[in-house]
Amino acid sequence: MNKTFSTLRINQDRFRSHFEALAKIGGTAEGGVHRPALSEAHLEARRWLKKQIAQAHLEIKIDGAGNHHALLGCGPQDGTGLLLGSHLDSVPNGGRFDGPLGVLAALEVLQVIKEQGLSLKVNLEAVDFTDEEDCFVSYMGSRALTGDLKRHDLQNPSKSRDLFQQALSRAGLTESGILAAARDPKTVAGYLELHIEQGNRLIEQRKDIGIVTTIVGIRSRWLKFLGRADHAGTTPVNRRRDAAQGAAAFTLAVRDLVMKDFPDSVVNVGNMEFAPAAFNVVPEAVKVALQFRADENNKLDRMEKALLEEAGRAAQRFGLRWEMAPLESIAPVDMNPKVQEAIIRACENLNLSYVMLSSGAGHDAQSMASIGPAGMIFVPSAGGFSHSPREFTEWQDCCNGANVLLHAALTLAH
Amino acid sequence: MNKTFSTLRINQDRFRSHFEALAKIGGTAEGGVHRPALSEAHLEARRWLKKQIAQAHLEIKIDGAGNHHALLGCGPQDGTGLLLGSHLDSVPNGGRFDGPLGVLAALEVLQVIKEQGLSLKVNLEAVDFTDEEDCFVSYMGSRALTGDLKRHDLQNPSKSRDLFQQALSRAGLTESGILAAARDPKTVAGYLELHIEQGNRLIEQRKDIGIVTTIVGIRSRWLKFLGRADHAGTTPVNRRRDAAQGAAAFTLAVRDLVMKDFPDSVVNVGNMEFAPAAFNVVPEAVKVALQFRADENNKLDRMEKALLEEAGRAAQRFGLRWEMAPLESIAPVDMNPKVQEAIIRACENLNLSYVMLSSGAGHDAQSMASIGPAGMIFVPSAGGFSHSPREFTEWQDCCNGANVLLHAALTLAH
Repeated sequence: MNKTFSTLRINQDRFRSHFEALAKIGGTAEGGVHRPALSEAHLEARRWLKKQIAQAHLEIKIDGAGNHHALLGCGPQDGTGLLLGSHLDSVPNGGRFDGPLGVLAALEVLQVIKEQGLSLKVNLEAVDFTDEEDCFVSYMGSRALTGDLKRHDLQNPSKSRDLFQQALSRAGLTESGILAAARDPKTVAGYLELHIEQGNRLIEQRKDIGIVTTIVGIRSRWLKFLGRADHAGTTPVNRRRDAAQGAAAFTLAVRDLVMKDFPDSVVNVGNMEFAPAAFNVVPEAVKVALQFRADENNKLDRMEKALLEEAGRAAQRFGLRWEMAPLESIAPVDMNPKVQEAIIRACENLNLSYVMLSSGAGHDAQSMASIGPAGMIFVPSAGGFSHSPREFTEWQDCCNGANVLLHAALTLAH
Repeated sequence: MNKTFSTLRINQDRFRSHFEALAKIGGTAEGGVHRPALSEAHLEARRWLKKQIAQAHLEIKIDGAGNHHALLGCGPQDGTGLLLGSHLDSVPNGGRFDGPLGVLAALEVLQVIKEQGLSLKVNLEAVDFTDEEDCFVSYMGSRALTGDLKRHDLQNPSKSRDLFQQALSRAGLTESGILAAARDPKTVAGYLELHIEQGNRLIEQRKDIGIVTTIVGIRSRWLKFLGRADHAGTTPVNRRRDAAQGAAAFTLAVRDLVMKDFPDSVVNVGNMEFAPAAFNVVPEAVKVALQFRADENNKLDRMEKALLEEAGRAAQRFGLRWEMAPLESIAPVDMNPKVQEAIIRACENLNLSYVMLSSGAGHDAQSMASIGPAGMIFVPSAGGFSHSPREFTEWQDCCNGANVLLHAALTLAH
């Protein structure tokens, strides 16, 4: 990086005013945001983003998957771009940092570089991906862009197909348009994403920046416990085949299992669906929404085996049958070493402390890694809270992260 | 009972053809029926019943709560009636015996007595009560008739108020009409109900008939466990406040508690509602649908105290808060001794073996007991299955029960 570059910084005031304006869209009483993908609030956030891109005199491109790109033609006219970005959708009742920070920092980087009139070896793009949070199809936008998304994925959304179709129609998207959004990998010079850590390692280790080495793999499964519907008043408790008991025993057991045998990995029972779901009927069936994560494929295989053994044990204990339906299996993904190196240099140039770490959360960077060198920059999450209105990052940390994004992008693009 | 009376029997062929025709309405592939109160299938069953009443040349009366009465003026013209009945609505995906058996046996009794042209001391009514199974408001029909139902009950249905309003409108009912359905207790000479046992005591004790002494009390509660929504990938399992863990520990604990300390009583966790209900978010809140039953009020009080202590323990173990919202508290109700005596005489006259027992299920008889002498006749349930398509009673047992109903009614009305 030459001397001019090394003194460049983002415009903190503009960055902050963007951040605060965006946090109001879908803002909740608790101080978070509720912007599930393709909801009215999410679409309003995207209309707001389009307006900012236009006001920054950047070109806008919206692809078939609804991904919003701001384009800065600072490189050759071959259309190849280094992508910087994240997402504007949130989990239900989520926080204001997860996603927006990376999108707005990317926009800020483009604005700073445009203001300097710099000529680089590649063009720059700030991108806002669709449905990172798996409201319907996880990483739908980035997977559509990389060509990884298949018709089967669209036909099996996390919510009902009806709700998905309504959402697509609200957003002006179509399944065929999404599948046609795949981009020639030759036009992608790489991908950089700034994000909050969503954990407490940076705070505990008193580091300014986390440089991601690996994004953990994620497997989502529906586990169904099947018993017998009986009258809840006349069937003695010990003669029931009560699916609720199996689901409950499983939920407790998997927590113990993971704490004991997979202490650096995680498991979650995020939902249950009862049938027939009446106060006065013994539950015949309980569906359990199971998700688990680990940083290596063979560890995921071992976890899955052990978790299913717990399902079998819980079912047997209460005279139940059980079934498993796989939903998603996302493999762990390593970040590109050269991109990691560029981020290290940015930290050093900016006098920021850093640590190499894995990401326990999935990100669009793992899709993008399949078509080009990808990397991620983490900033501290106060208290480690995430997917919650309590999510919080000090503003100085947000600016540090945006400056690291700026410098790492300049290094990669120069 | 005089000699003529003692040789009277129901018409088994007509009774059976009624039973089988009715079981087809809302019939399911598994051989049960799906006729939730005020659903299209339930309303179709009631249209069918009206037609049978008309074909039997009995008078029909539908009160403001939608209760269908067939009237036989075999007594004085003062309008006082001995009511025989049950209900045509079912739990979701229920059986074909629970409710219809009692309504059709009552209709059969009226037809037999009409054919004989008997003069009795009171008139007879066969009644089909609305929403016995608590689709919206439990025992809505019988509680409306006895004047026990209040506006507050209608404003807090088990399902959403919108769904309830839609159902009322579908059935041509109104809240004010329901509240105006209360009947002068002086016009009710008593109430008799034939029902399947819904348990396995008659089968185990090889008895033909059960004579109910007490109907157990029922309490329904929503228990809410409150934790913290966190990212399910980045929050270590042991740092969560996971509401699912509290709900699971509670579900297992209450089963053990009741088996150990209340072995003749029951508890059920019939449903759970998670929030935010996503694979990738640690559950912030889980609502648990709890119901428990016992044959004495002070036993219900002790159970409730012990169950809530388990909720406190489960919450404390996982760093959660908890809340309880009472839904319904129905006190245990004793059946009238003179009615029990009439049923005993009927069994003896018919050479049927019998046993006195409590009812673990609630019935309209417990509402009716508040305005007049009430009693219940049970027939065996094969396998003890109930609220399930597996519900089954031998046809001979159904006919035995209908004949006991006939003879007990004649004794009470003579």
